[in-house]
Amino acid sequence: MGKTSLRERLYIIIHGTDTPAGRNFDVVLLWMILLSTLTVCLESVPAYRQLANVLFKGLEWFFTIIFTVEYVLRVYSNPRPLKYMFSFYGIIDFLSIIPTYLAFFAPTLRYIMTIRVLRLLRVFRILKLTSYVENAQLITRALVASLHKITVFIVAVFTLVLIVGTIIYVVEGEENGFTSIPQSIYWAIVTITTVGYGDITPRTPLGQIISSLVMLMGYAIIAVPTGIVTVELSRIKSPEDEPTTPLLCGNCQQTLRKTDNFCSNCGHKVVSVQ
Amino acid sequence: MGKTSLRERLYIIIHGTDTPAGRNFDVVLLWMILLSTLTVCLESVPAYRQLANVLFKGLEWFFTIIFTVEYVLRVYSNPRPLKYMFSFYGIIDFLSIIPTYLAFFAPTLRYIMTIRVLRLLRVFRILKLTSYVENAQLITRALVASLHKITVFIVAVFTLVLIVGTIIYVVEGEENGFTSIPQSIYWAIVTITTVGYGDITPRTPLGQIISSLVMLMGYAIIAVPTGIVTVELSRIKSPEDEPTTPLLCGNCQQTLRKTDNFCSNCGHKVVSVQ
Amino acid sequence: MGKTSLRERLYIIIHGTDTPAGRNFDVVLLWMILLSTLTVCLESVPAYRQLANVLFKGLEWFFTIIFTVEYVLRVYSNPRPLKYMFSFYGIIDFLSIIPTYLAFFAPTLRYIMTIRVLRLLRVFRILKLTSYVENAQLITRALVASLHKITVFIVAVFTLVLIVGTIIYVVEGEENGFTSIPQSIYWAIVTITTVGYGDITPRTPLGQIISSLVMLMGYAIIAVPTGIVTVELSRIKSPEDEPTTPLLCGNCQQTLRKTDNFCSNCGHKVVSVQ
Amino acid sequence: MGKTSLRERLYIIIHGTDTPAGRNFDVVLLWMILLSTLTVCLESVPAYRQLANVLFKGLEWFFTIIFTVEYVLRVYSNPRPLKYMFSFYGIIDFLSIIPTYLAFFAPTLRYIMTIRVLRLLRVFRILKLTSYVENAQLITRALVASLHKITVFIVAVFTLVLIVGTIIYVVEGEENGFTSIPQSIYWAIVTITTVGYGDITPRTPLGQIISSLVMLMGYAIIAVPTGIVTVELSRIKSPEDEPTTPLLCGNCQQTLRKTDNFCSNCGHKVVSVQ
Repeated sequence: MGKTSLRERLYIIIHGTDTPAGRNFDVVLLWMILLSTLTVCLESVPAYRQLANVLFKGLEWFFTIIFTVEYVLRVYSNPRPLKYMFSFYGIIDFLSIIPTYLAFFAPTLRYIMTIRVLRLLRVFRILKLTSYVENAQLITRALVASLHKITVFIVAVFTLVLIVGTIIYVVEGEENGFTSIPQSIYWAIVTITTVGYGDITPRTPLGQIISSLVMLMGYAIIAVPTGIVTVELSRIKSPEDEPTTPLLCGNCQQTLRKTDNFCSNCGHKVVSVQ
Repeated sequence: MGKTSLRERLYIIIHGTDTPAGRNFDVVLLWMILLSTLTVCLESVPAYRQLANVLFKGLEWFFTIIFTVEYVLRVYSNPRPLKYMFSFYGIIDFLSIIPTYLAFFAPTLRYIMTIRVLRLLRVFRILKLTSYVENAQLITRALVASLHKITVFIVAVFTLVLIVGTIIYVVEGEENGFTSIPQSIYWAIVTITTVGYGDITPRTPLGQIISSLVMLMGYAIIAVPTGIVTVELSRIKSPEDEPTTPLLCGNCQQTLRKTDNFCSNCGHKVVSVQ
Repeated sequence: MGKTSLRERLYIIIHGTDTPAGRNFDVVLLWMILLSTLTVCLESVPAYRQLANVLFKGLEWFFTIIFTVEYVLRVYSNPRPLKYMFSFYGIIDFLSIIPTYLAFFAPTLRYIMTIRVLRLLRVFRILKLTSYVENAQLITRALVASLHKITVFIVAVFTLVLIVGTIIYVVEGEENGFTSIPQSIYWAIVTITTVGYGDITPRTPLGQIISSLVMLMGYAIIAVPTGIVTVELSRIKSPEDEPTTPLLCGNCQQTLRKTDNFCSNCGHKVVSVQ
Repeated sequence: MGKTSLRERLYIIIHGTDTPAGRNFDVVLLWMILLSTLTVCLESVPAYRQLANVLFKGLEWFFTIIFTVEYVLRVYSNPRPLKYMFSFYGIIDFLSIIPTYLAFFAPTLRYIMTIRVLRLLRVFRILKLTSYVENAQLITRALVASLHKITVFIVAVFTLVLIVGTIIYVVEGEENGFTSIPQSIYWAIVTITTVGYGDITPRTPLGQIISSLVMLMGYAIIAVPTGIVTVELSRIKSPEDEPTTPLLCGNCQQTLRKTDNFCSNCGHKVVSVQ
């Protein structure tokens, strides 16, 4: 029960979710992450900041110190500390505490600590919400499966947006708010994604005609990613309907069809067992 | 034909839809709900209110008293009054009358009575529009079936929106209208859902670049719920076409169609068992 | 070759599309409809109207008189004039000429004559673009097939919009631009359809939170009609893949499956002919 | 090793991608296209232009001269120069260099040179990203396959937009920003595609009711192209799984798998013919 034993116990509490202590640790942690994120959000509201500046500063340091201690213990207790430090959660954990310290140099950077919210993604692992995790994997797999198609699509949209932006810049000009090509590209993206802020709008008749065409194109274009993802999602659903334990030939171990009377590989007579 | 008999008759008229009296009661009720909702809407228009304040007040009390009497009779006539009172429609019925009385204390709360419109959902039951009800159930089932996937999706969107909101708050700052992180999150939601009011818009070049990326991400993201619901809807349609324990030929075990008199493989006469 | 013969010849030219004369008549007519619609559009532009008011007035009367003569001849030459007059195209034809005459009484109503553009729908019939017509029917059939589902959906959206509109009216109030419930319902529709003009926007924190929730709901809701129409479209496509000339039993004429050795109706041995 | 040999070597370097020299040439070219496009974009920003006008002008002429030399060499080295000049890439290459020379006459036309970005599409060919090319073809084929349906849809939207635009012009009038029918059509397109700039918005109650109906229609309409593209995409995926004239057993005519050595029905030895 020496130093090593303490490390091991810490490891089980901090990294594990199977013991009551480990579970309680995680639940308390989740609530603290949630509260600290909420604190950062509320602190950014001028009215609240003026009202309770000292309280917010105190809470911020309170949470940061706790998370710092937690981070140090995580590194300490982990048998492979470097692997943890450069894992997804390790980097997130580090980025969650560093902004408070950096704030001595650049105050606004402090808000980057809202990256803490990403730590909440652990909730799925901790609460063993496997159905949610599976569904998340399903969606992710559908998106990855359609990655090549979506890349082609993004390249096409990017090219389109660059050309449309240039044309509208030439047509409308700086006097109508299209002050540069990058700004016009921004307008083209705002339009083609149907966001339509209205901070920059075409004012010449020709500009409005071009905009109308761009919108109708955006209308057809929006259909493409939806179609891609739908098709991928519907394809990925099928695997779970696939047969699980296949019939094998007793002679050559080849996979058999249910209707086979003879093995199609070696001609061995199939003895039905089902 | 004493008190009990009156209660029973009331029950048939108020809760039932099969007798002419019950049907007429429901049709009159539907029209009154519709008219009272319309009255509340019109009364909120300043011009109309000034024009005919007394009329609107009168109508409001007229409808509220009628609905109150109806509610009391519903509770009185129902053999299991508590079950009704805490059912979906029972709560809606109660919330439809209470705001007028509460208006003595808080005038604006009076408008909550537009919740009355939910009472109109009875129309499907009353008019026996079973096809509509079935279709509503179909859509609801598709949404419920994809609930886990949509939850994952909402969590992902929420996390994304929080991080994007913080980044844009740091980049744009209070001088460009992004006065706090909650307000920036509001902007991020307005942008990613492609609503795009334009009440808050990025003005710095970096802010516009980040916004453009967020919009293109929103473009890809909007495809996900559509894909999920489409796949669920297309899966739910199929059950009605599903086979139910197939008929087999007694001689050669081949699958038979329901209308077969002879086995199409060996010519064996089919003995109908269904 | 008396009066009747002239009527018949007129009928073939005006209503038919098979003779060269009938075809030429239709092509000239299409161009005149297109030009007259364009004239009305351009005439509404103040700058052009001031420039060439007499020209526009002249063109308007020129087209109206021609269309009036055409309408009279259509009614005269048609063996069943009343059937034509109350058909879809008959009503459109009438509404295309009447506004010019009505303009003596109410000038702005004149623009209703752009309804003329609906006459262009004849282009599909005239140019025998059957593939387009078939595709239009396909889309229409898909929309009709999903009509009940879409009705349920529209009712749900309408109820939602009424309640959301009332809540935001109570929360934001008249001082933030939500001047009445109807106006707030208009805002709710603008928001939930992701149009997002930005003419009315929430300004209180609570109002912005409610708006955010409404937008995220709209995000999920937009998936429903898309899913419905996609499923209908994919179901309607299948018929064309169906087998065309089915195999029939030589004894009892029942439809056979390709793999049948005996007729499943009468037990007759199938003689393979394929 | 005379003149012809030089042409051939140039052809291999400029048009080919298989030799190291050809590959290096293409990679350098891609970077120059990217940099030159970026230069044009940045040069359009007033602040940057004032800061470094001479630098931008110099870079523009630098890139234009290089691309001109490249174009001349491409034409010179190609055994069929005219075929290249009128090919898709030949026209793009020409349009990429001509604006700089035209700028002597019309300065703003210079920006049309951003069409250079289309030259980047070569990246797919050069880097042999066949999977991307195949996916692009897949998407294109799906869009082409649904061209007739989308045309019908665009015609329907165009007709709708013209009629809605006229109605709103009559209802709202010039005093509310709907200054002409073309402008009102522009508004209708902005609304129905859910872009919703908010530069023109209905202000009369009737106008807002009509707008609400148009938005809800747009809601249903947006489902159609998505449905069409999804169905086409899901149909196009299947061909690669299609069987091509199945193998049959010589003894009992049962369908065989490509890998079968014995018929799985009767045990007959398969004589491979492929």
